[in-house]
Amino acid sequence: VKRTSFRDRRCSIAQTLEIVGEWWTLLIVRDALRGLRRFEDFQESLEIARNVLASRLRTLVDRGVLERRRYQERPSRYEYVLTEKGADLFPVIIALMQWGDRWASKKGPPVLLYDRATDQPVEPVLVDGRTGRKIERGSLRPKPGPGADAKLRRSMEQRRDS
Amino acid sequence: VKRTSFRDRRCSIAQTLEIVGEWWTLLIVRDALRGLRRFEDFQESLEIARNVLASRLRTLVDRGVLERRRYQERPSRYEYVLTEKGADLFPVIIALMQWGDRWASKKGPPVLLYDRATDQPVEPVLVDGRTGRKIERGSLRPKPGPGADAKLRRSMEQRRDS
Repeated sequence: VKRTSFRDRRCSIAQTLEIVGEWWTLLIVRDALRGLRRFEDFQESLEIARNVLASRLRTLVDRGVLERRRYQERPSRYEYVLTEKGADLFPVIIALMQWGDRWASKKGPPVLLYDRATDQPVEPVLVDGRTGRKIERGSLRPKPGPGADAKLRRSMEQRRDS
Repeated sequence: VKRTSFRDRRCSIAQTLEIVGEWWTLLIVRDALRGLRRFEDFQESLEIARNVLASRLRTLVDRGVLERRRYQERPSRYEYVLTEKGADLFPVIIALMQWGDRWASKKGPPVLLYDRATDQPVEPVLVDGRTGRKIERGSLRPKPGPGADAKLRRSMEQRRDS
């Protein structure tokens, strides 16, 4: 199957999927956020073929999501650590988890999140940092930003009129 | 390439990717959230082969993310509308967009979000709905939930000790 590239599209969602979108690549990021670093740990967690995992890890290193670090010499051993860019995928992982908890977990959430400081359950909600108000689908109006091109501007204009 | 299935894994992130994770499927959801409904509009937006788009739309209908509705008779014409389950992917789309804005938009964000009521820019932030405090990676402690199985419990125990 030929893979369409969305790299040149003016859309940050497309750009993100271009980088992390091989469909289960985000599970590696999930595991890294949980603290996994070594090839064997990822392999045990994901239960996928070693060559496939190796290829995905290489891609994530190439794209700046993971950093490959030597933690032992003779023999050389490496671990994979999230870069700042990679760790910044945290809200994506939380959003995917919340949706799955609600819509795809027959037996209830497999994992619950607690506040490390207070040991109270946490309910992630998306709010506007400026006003503290909850962000909902209908409350937003998208406008073209500095990275918009003519095509995007035109299509957003059409949307607004319709 | 054989596609590994994570359907039986006890992880809401994996479950979500199982449903929406064909790498650019979320772009259809993005467009639907922006108000697109018709096959031709999705096709124009995504610029992908018609048979591929048709297959992805069918998958999303099968999985309950989109609903196929007839909006015209003789000839019959259909449109695709987000279900509640589909519209609930909104925070995932916002999270992907924010990451792309920060890490993959050389010319700046293509799209800016404004509050429809106040026309002020919106800054989406993830907070704990109970306390209003910002949720960060280090502030959370995951615990096994009702949907956890023995393997997950064991691995979470090990993580906590390490």
